[in-house]
Amino acid sequence: MILPKATRLNPEQVAEVTAIVGEFGCSIQPIIGAVRTIYAIVGDERDELMINRLEGLPYVDRIDRIQSPFKLMDRRSDLSSHRITIGGVTLGEELLVIAGQCTIDPKNPGYYLETAAAVKEAGAHVLRGGVWKPRTNPYAFQGDAKSIETLMEASRQTGLPVNTEVMDEQQLELALGAGVQMIQVGARNALNYSLLRAIGRAVAKADTVVLLKRSLHMGALNEFISAAEYIVSFGNPNVILCPRGTAPALDGYRNHPDESITPLLKEKTWAPVVVDPSHSVGKASYVPACALAAVTYGADGLCIEAHVSPSHGIGDDPKQALSPSALADTIAQAKQIWALRRSVAGGA
Amino acid sequence: MILPKATRLNPEQVAEVTAIVGEFGCSIQPIIGAVRTIYAIVGDERDELMINRLEGLPYVDRIDRIQSPFKLMDRRSDLSSHRITIGGVTLGEELLVIAGQCTIDPKNPGYYLETAAAVKEAGAHVLRGGVWKPRTNPYAFQGDAKSIETLMEASRQTGLPVNTEVMDEQQLELALGAGVQMIQVGARNALNYSLLRAIGRAVAKADTVVLLKRSLHMGALNEFISAAEYIVSFGNPNVILCPRGTAPALDGYRNHPDESITPLLKEKTWAPVVVDPSHSVGKASYVPACALAAVTYGADGLCIEAHVSPSHGIGDDPKQALSPSALADTIAQAKQIWALRRSVAGGA
Amino acid sequence: MILPKATRLNPEQVAEVTAIVGEFGCSIQPIIGAVRTIYAIVGDERDELMINRLEGLPYVDRIDRIQSPFKLMDRRSDLSSHRITIGGVTLGEELLVIAGQCTIDPKNPGYYLETAAAVKEAGAHVLRGGVWKPRTNPYAFQGDAKSIETLMEASRQTGLPVNTEVMDEQQLELALGAGVQMIQVGARNALNYSLLRAIGRAVAKADTVVLLKRSLHMGALNEFISAAEYIVSFGNPNVILCPRGTAPALDGYRNHPDESITPLLKEKTWAPVVVDPSHSVGKASYVPACALAAVTYGADGLCIEAHVSPSHGIGDDPKQALSPSALADTIAQAKQIWALRRSVAGGA
Amino acid sequence: MILPKATRLNPEQVAEVTAIVGEFGCSIQPIIGAVRTIYAIVGDERDELMINRLEGLPYVDRIDRIQSPFKLMDRRSDLSSHRITIGGVTLGEELLVIAGQCTIDPKNPGYYLETAAAVKEAGAHVLRGGVWKPRTNPYAFQGDAKSIETLMEASRQTGLPVNTEVMDEQQLELALGAGVQMIQVGARNALNYSLLRAIGRAVAKADTVVLLKRSLHMGALNEFISAAEYIVSFGNPNVILCPRGTAPALDGYRNHPDESITPLLKEKTWAPVVVDPSHSVGKASYVPACALAAVTYGADGLCIEAHVSPSHGIGDDPKQALSPSALADTIAQAKQIWALRRSVAGGA
Repeated sequence: MILPKATRLNPEQVAEVTAIVGEFGCSIQPIIGAVRTIYAIVGDERDELMINRLEGLPYVDRIDRIQSPFKLMDRRSDLSSHRITIGGVTLGEELLVIAGQCTIDPKNPGYYLETAAAVKEAGAHVLRGGVWKPRTNPYAFQGDAKSIETLMEASRQTGLPVNTEVMDEQQLELALGAGVQMIQVGARNALNYSLLRAIGRAVAKADTVVLLKRSLHMGALNEFISAAEYIVSFGNPNVILCPRGTAPALDGYRNHPDESITPLLKEKTWAPVVVDPSHSVGKASYVPACALAAVTYGADGLCIEAHVSPSHGIGDDPKQALSPSALADTIAQAKQIWALRRSVAGGA
Repeated sequence: MILPKATRLNPEQVAEVTAIVGEFGCSIQPIIGAVRTIYAIVGDERDELMINRLEGLPYVDRIDRIQSPFKLMDRRSDLSSHRITIGGVTLGEELLVIAGQCTIDPKNPGYYLETAAAVKEAGAHVLRGGVWKPRTNPYAFQGDAKSIETLMEASRQTGLPVNTEVMDEQQLELALGAGVQMIQVGARNALNYSLLRAIGRAVAKADTVVLLKRSLHMGALNEFISAAEYIVSFGNPNVILCPRGTAPALDGYRNHPDESITPLLKEKTWAPVVVDPSHSVGKASYVPACALAAVTYGADGLCIEAHVSPSHGIGDDPKQALSPSALADTIAQAKQIWALRRSVAGGA
Repeated sequence: MILPKATRLNPEQVAEVTAIVGEFGCSIQPIIGAVRTIYAIVGDERDELMINRLEGLPYVDRIDRIQSPFKLMDRRSDLSSHRITIGGVTLGEELLVIAGQCTIDPKNPGYYLETAAAVKEAGAHVLRGGVWKPRTNPYAFQGDAKSIETLMEASRQTGLPVNTEVMDEQQLELALGAGVQMIQVGARNALNYSLLRAIGRAVAKADTVVLLKRSLHMGALNEFISAAEYIVSFGNPNVILCPRGTAPALDGYRNHPDESITPLLKEKTWAPVVVDPSHSVGKASYVPACALAAVTYGADGLCIEAHVSPSHGIGDDPKQALSPSALADTIAQAKQIWALRRSVAGGA
Repeated sequence: MILPKATRLNPEQVAEVTAIVGEFGCSIQPIIGAVRTIYAIVGDERDELMINRLEGLPYVDRIDRIQSPFKLMDRRSDLSSHRITIGGVTLGEELLVIAGQCTIDPKNPGYYLETAAAVKEAGAHVLRGGVWKPRTNPYAFQGDAKSIETLMEASRQTGLPVNTEVMDEQQLELALGAGVQMIQVGARNALNYSLLRAIGRAVAKADTVVLLKRSLHMGALNEFISAAEYIVSFGNPNVILCPRGTAPALDGYRNHPDESITPLLKEKTWAPVVVDPSHSVGKASYVPACALAAVTYGADGLCIEAHVSPSHGIGDDPKQALSPSALADTIAQAKQIWALRRSVAGGA
C-alpha cells in the first residue's frame, strides 16, 4: 500500500511508480478515499528492493506492508502441521522443560553431573549446560571446550538430550560432533546471519533441534521469526523460538521480561515458543513468577537455570540459578497452570 | 554516595561538598577504594535540593541514592500493616476483581445495568464504569456527567461498590457527592499532582479507596509510588497501585504489558497491586492470558473491562471488553492460580 | 484499511463490516492482492468508535489508518499559514529563545530579577520562570503563588513576555489574571485533557501563547499533536509544541533526548517546534550540545534554563541551569547554525 | 557498594559477605547512615563472579558498582593519548567523513566506481562499500565476494582507504587479504564475541582500523565500550565507536537516532566516535539533520551512505543514500559546525 505525501499522486508520479513495481511483476490499483487516494500494490510485494525503491521516492510518505515477510515460518505455510519432539516431549502436547547450569565449571565438573541428575529428578526433559559463554567483559571466564565431555557424560548418565550455546562454526562443529541434540543461538548472536546459515547447513539433514533466543532489543517480531527462517530454509524445521527478556531492562530486573509476546508470535508463526525466565528477570527469587506467567501466555516450554548449589556456581549461576527443589516446585505449578489453560475450550 | 569524576576529590572540593551537605544537617565520609575514593553522605539524604546542588558540581560524576524517597508508602513504614477492604474483600487475603464497562453510554444506560448484574454474577467485587473519558481525539465522545446516576443505580441494584475515573476537581466532587466508593486516577493524570493533592484532601477523612493507574512511560517505579504518597500524605492510606501497560507499545498490543513489575513494587511498598490487563493488551482475545500472568506475578487483584454485548459498547468496549462468560472463565482460572501460588510456602 | 486474519473475508463477514462502516457513512472497497484481499474504508475513517468496533471483530487482524486524526493541526489544514509572534519574534522567521530559572525562589526573589536582566542581555526573547512546580516528591518545594508578582515585575523591568507552567484551573486563572503571556503545560499534564480544555476556553479570545510540552513517553507523535488540537479547537491557534526528552532515560541523561522528532512533527503539523534541551539532558554541561542539535533538526526555538548563580538556585537550577555567559554562547552558536541551515535551499 | 535489604547486615551475614569478597582479595567497610548501613567493597570490585555471588545472596538488595568495567578503553587508561589516523585525518583534529554505497551491486560495479570518485570529490576521506550484507530476509540479496575486487579498484582509483563490513572469519580473511584498511562490525554482530576476538587477533599487529557499530538496543553504554575492549585487548587500539540508531525505532524513523550518546561515551572512553546518520533515520531527506546533530554533540566523524544514482542502487541505497551533491552540502555544513564547536574554549 503506497501512501503519498500529497492527497494523491500526479500522472507523472503514477507512471514512475507503475514502472518501478512493473520491474518486479506488480501493478498498482488506486483506492480513492474521501480525503486521500492511496495505491495498493497488486502482486507479490515482498521484494525488499522494490519496497526500498518506492520508499526512496520523494513524494511517497510511507509504504504499508500487508504480506508476511517469511515463507516457511508463516503460520499459514505448509510447515504449520510440523511438530517437534525432543526428550520424549512433543511440543504443544506437553510442557517442555529445559533446565541446568548456565555454565559448566571446568574445574568442578562434578557439580554439573549432580545438577543433571537433580534436574532430571525435578522433571526436566532436556539438560542445559553452557560450555562456551558470551561475556560482556572480555576478561571474564569464556568457557572451556573440554566441558563438552562433561556435558555428554551428563547426557549419558541421565539419558536426557542436552542443549548448549555455540557462538561460531568451530564450536558448532565440536558440539555436533560430540552429539549435542539441541543447539542454542544466544541473544547476542540472534541476528548473526553467518552463524544462522552455518547452523542451517550443518543440521539440514539431521534431527537436531535449534533453540533460537530473541535478540536483545524490543519490537521487531518479524525480525525474530525471519532469523528462524534462515535456519529452516536449509531443510530442518526443528526451530524453537525463545523469548528471554529485552533491553532496556525493566528497572529492577536484568532485562525487560517479554513472555507476553508469546500470543503475538503464535499469530504469525507455527513455531513453538519456549520462554527463558532466568535471563528475563536475572535473579532466582523472581524466576518462578516469570516462568508461570509464560505458561499463562501460552508458552510451549520453559528454559530455566538450576544448580545443585548455586553459590558454588560460576557465570550467572550464583545469581539466577534455582535450587533443584525450587525447580521442582516451579515445574509442578507450571504443569498445573498448563493443564488449567488447556482445559478451556480453544486454550485461551 | 558521591562519585567524583577524578579518582578523588581535592581538599577544596571536599570543603565545598562538606559545606553543602552541612546546610542540610549531613556530613560526608570518604570510602577509600583500590582505584577511586567515593564519599558517603551521612544523614538524611532525601532532600532533593541537596542532591540537585551536589549533582550540579562540575567535579561530581553522579550521586547514588541509597534511601527510599517515600516515607509512608515504604515497605518498612508504620503503614505496612494497613489492610484495605472493599467489596467485602480484604486485599491480600482474596483476589479482588473490579469489572465493568470502559464507558457508560448515556444513550443506552440499560446496557450498563445489565453489565453490572452480569459481572456480579461472574464474580466481580467492584463495578467499573466510566462516566468521563480521557480521549486522545478531542472530537471523540468525552463522557456525560448524567451517567453518574446510572453508575450509582447499578451500585444499588447489585450492592457492589463502584469505581470511576475523575480527571478534575469538579468531577471529583460530583463522584464523591454521589457516593462513589473507589476513585480512579487514570494513566494520563497519574502525575497530575494538583489532582492527586485534591483527591488526597477530599478523601482524607473518608474510607474511599483510590485506584492509581501507572503513568504511560516505562521505568521510574519510585515515581509511581511517590504519586501514591501524595494522596496518602493527607491521611487516608487506601491507595491501590494499578499497572496497565506502558508506551512504547509492544508491537501488536495496545501498550507494553507490565504486570511483571508487581514483585518489584512489592519490594518497595506495602501497597496492594491490582493489574489492568484490558488496557495492557487492548484486545479482548489477549486479556485472559495477561490477567492470569498478573496473578502469577503476585497481583492482589484484577481490573477487567467487560460488557454484556461488547459490539454495542462505546469507547474501548467493542475492542477490549470481555463477555460475561469470558470474564467468569477468567476469574475462575485466576482464582485457581491465586490459590496455587498461595499454597507454596512464602507465596512465591 | 481492514486486514483480515484469513486470506479474505467471507460473505457474512463482508456484510457485517459493511453494516458497521455504513453506520458511520462509509463503505468498503476490496483490494484483491496476489495472496490476500484487504478492504479499504471509503469515507471519513476518523471516527474512533467505528475503528474500535472494527478492531473488535474476531476475524479482523488489524486496521491500518490512513487519514490524519486531527483537523486543525494537520499540516494541510487552513491553519497552516498561521504564524505565531511573541517577544518580537515571528516563529519560523527567527530562532525564538525562551530562558530563565526553573523555579523562582520566594525567599530570594532578587535572583530572579537579576536572572531576567541577564538572560535578556544574553539574547532571550521570552522569560521563563516557574511559580508552581510539579515535583515527584510530595514533600519537596511545590512553589508559591506570590512568586507570580516577581515574575510580572521581571516582565515589566525587561519588557519581555513571560512563560510559566500551570497545573490546574486555579493557577491558570491567577497566571492569566496577572498578565502572563505564555502559558506552559508541563510533561506530566500533557495529556490532562481537563486542563487542556480549560486552557483552550480561557485563551480562546486572547492572543496568549501556549507552550505544550511533550508527554514523558516515547512514540505517539499523533497523541502529542492531538493534545494541541484540544486547545486550538476553542479558537486560539497559538500553540507551540515542545519536545523535552522522554522516559526511559538514556543511560546517563535525565531523559532520552528527543529533538530528533522535530522533522517528523513538521511533516504532520504546521505548529512551530521549540525544544527544551535542559530537561532532555538534565545537566548544564550537556545542554549546549543538545540545544544546537535541536537547531540542526529544524527547531524554531529553544527553551533553556538559566540562572545568574546556579548553585544558589532551587528546584532543578543547581543541576541544569546555564550561567548567563554559557547561555549567551549557546544562543550565539545556535543562531549561526540556524542561519547555516536556512541558507540551504529548502532549509534541510 | 553492597546495599542490604534490611537496615543492616547481621553478624552472620557480615561474615558470609566478608568470606566471599575475601576469595577475590577484597574486604568490606561499613558506612553507617542515619537510616541504613551499607558496605563498601574495598579492593578490585571488577570480578564478575564476585559480583554475581554477592547479588545471589538473599539478604542483598543490590550491588552498586563504582569502578569502570574496562581497562584499556577507560578514559583514564594509558591508551587515552592514542590517536587514530586514517585517510589522512587524525581523529579529533579534523572531522572524518566515511561515505559510499550501502551495497556494491555485483551486476553493476560501474556505479560503485563512479560513486567512489564522486564521494571523494564531495570531501570523503574513507570509502564505504558493502560487499556482504546482513539482511533480515533470508531470501534477499546477501552480497557477493567478488565485489571485493570492485572495492579495492575504487581504493586504487581514488587513493582512499576503504571500509567494508565482515560477518564471519572467512569474510574477514578475504577482506584483510585484499587490503581493506577499515573493517566494520555491524550492529547485528556488535556483541558477537567470537567475531570480535577473531578480528582482534587478525589485526593485532596491523594498523587496520575497526569501525564498531553500536548494537540495536538502547542503554548499556558499558556493553558497547566493552565490545571494543575485546578487540583492543589483542594489541591494536585503532577502534572507533559508531552509534547508528537503536530499536525500538522512533515512530517515523528507521531506528531511534542516538547521536546524543556521544558526550556520554566520551566521559567513559578515549575512543573516537563516528556517527552513522544513514541507518539512524533511514531516509535520505532526514540524513543531513541527523549528521549535523552528531557534530553538535561532539562526534569525531560521520559515516554516510551516498550513491551517484540512488534509485539505481540496491540494498538500502534507493531509500537512504544521499546524492553526491547532497553529500557535499552536508559535509560543508558539518565542517562549519565542527569549526564553530571547536572555537568555543574547551569545545563545550
